[in-house]
Amino acid sequence: MASVSNSIGPSARRWRRYGSGVPVTILPVEGLPEVQPGDDLAHLIHHRSDLGDGDVVVITSKIVSKAEGCAIELSEVEPSSFAERWALQWEKDPRLVEVVLRESARIVRQVGPVLITETKHGFVCANSGVDQSSSGGHDRVLVLPADPDASARKVRRRFAELGVDVAVIITDTFGRPWREGQTDVAIGIAGLQPLHSYIGQTDPHGHEFRVQEMCVADELAAAGELVKGNTSRVPAAVVRGYDWIPDDNASMAAVIRDSSRDLFR
Amino acid sequence: MASVSNSIGPSARRWRRYGSGVPVTILPVEGLPEVQPGDDLAHLIHHRSDLGDGDVVVITSKIVSKAEGCAIELSEVEPSSFAERWALQWEKDPRLVEVVLRESARIVRQVGPVLITETKHGFVCANSGVDQSSSGGHDRVLVLPADPDASARKVRRRFAELGVDVAVIITDTFGRPWREGQTDVAIGIAGLQPLHSYIGQTDPHGHEFRVQEMCVADELAAAGELVKGNTSRVPAAVVRGYDWIPDDNASMAAVIRDSSRDLFR
Repeated sequence: MASVSNSIGPSARRWRRYGSGVPVTILPVEGLPEVQPGDDLAHLIHHRSDLGDGDVVVITSKIVSKAEGCAIELSEVEPSSFAERWALQWEKDPRLVEVVLRESARIVRQVGPVLITETKHGFVCANSGVDQSSSGGHDRVLVLPADPDASARKVRRRFAELGVDVAVIITDTFGRPWREGQTDVAIGIAGLQPLHSYIGQTDPHGHEFRVQEMCVADELAAAGELVKGNTSRVPAAVVRGYDWIPDDNASMAAVIRDSSRDLFR
Repeated sequence: MASVSNSIGPSARRWRRYGSGVPVTILPVEGLPEVQPGDDLAHLIHHRSDLGDGDVVVITSKIVSKAEGCAIELSEVEPSSFAERWALQWEKDPRLVEVVLRESARIVRQVGPVLITETKHGFVCANSGVDQSSSGGHDRVLVLPADPDASARKVRRRFAELGVDVAVIITDTFGRPWREGQTDVAIGIAGLQPLHSYIGQTDPHGHEFRVQEMCVADELAAAGELVKGNTSRVPAAVVRGYDWIPDDNASMAAVIRDSSRDLFR
């Protein structure tokens, strides 16, 4: 069970500065049951971890989707003729293709059997993040949470009710251009800002840093994956010792690049 | 000082399986001096960390470049007319632009003042990874190591001579399409394969995983950045508790996507 602090607030915490040379530990949350619609994720995780104030809880989106009832029965999906034609051409399930298209705001690339889309949230990934493998049935697929920031905020609030002040990051596994292999990235966040800015700071030689903003949310997501693995047995991890400044205005909106700044739309 | 094991070899280690639910700890390597050409990085890091067999040492490329003498004096660079024209248009130093072009195999995007290139190694990043901020002088720039895998192998071999069997990852800080903020990624590796494959494995429901290959090298690089920060004070980190299978054929070549498979060239 978590060690619950009596006084939770900035005064009770000792936040360390970013990159301060303090070890960071990534702990798996083990023994979580198969998540069902309506489950209280914060309660399930809190019960199986020794959470403390200042921890960052990294949660795989698939269990958030399951708790929020984001499963779709393919038998209830009527594919469009566009979905039908493309599915036929590439030997895909037209109902699955239809769900991918419905979850997308825009198709970024459609080359051969590969469909890279921009999701309704603004994330660019394969197949709008629609997941057949984790859905618990061949005729059921999982879609991403409708508003992952809101999901993260809800879980963070629930953790606070349970007595711990933690940040929450919801992750998914995305590919990327130019590099093989996927990595876990953040799709929802609560409590900590996803970007850490160095703008205006100078190095010991007086130069401005070449690096302007680090996406610490994605680095925390990636770190969490190192203990979670992708076998769906360990869908949550706790990052301890990482310094963050509580900010309840945090949102992944800061990470979604505006199309005017994007060279690869 | 490191605790040196007497017998180093697969039989002496207890490698855990990936995602096995064991905590991973990321430790900063503090107190490193300003690195000079010819410095022995393994010795410098070994002296300031409690390294053990199975650790992964994550090293910022800038100190590898410094140790290998990859600084270029801009006063000795003769810009081409192409570099001159573009630098004039966007108020850049034409000699710096010339170095960026020399370090590139191909220009991927050149829009306004932004220059995204494919480096000689095959990595796609801004300005071919050329760094003015960390070079120790306004008229000097640092370029990436000529062969980061070879650099990593050399450092790993040197660690072995000092008595520890560790993997080595050399990192740089890259931006990415669609998402704001940069993250640390791997550019050189030794001892562990950069990709962890799930191909052919199935989940508890019998489905093949949607995730096929995780780029654990990039996730380890990102995790290391959480304690390094980008202030150049902590240019190395040790990842402890992460499971890897020793493989001296490891190379970042596996991560560089072949142009035939790339939708965003």
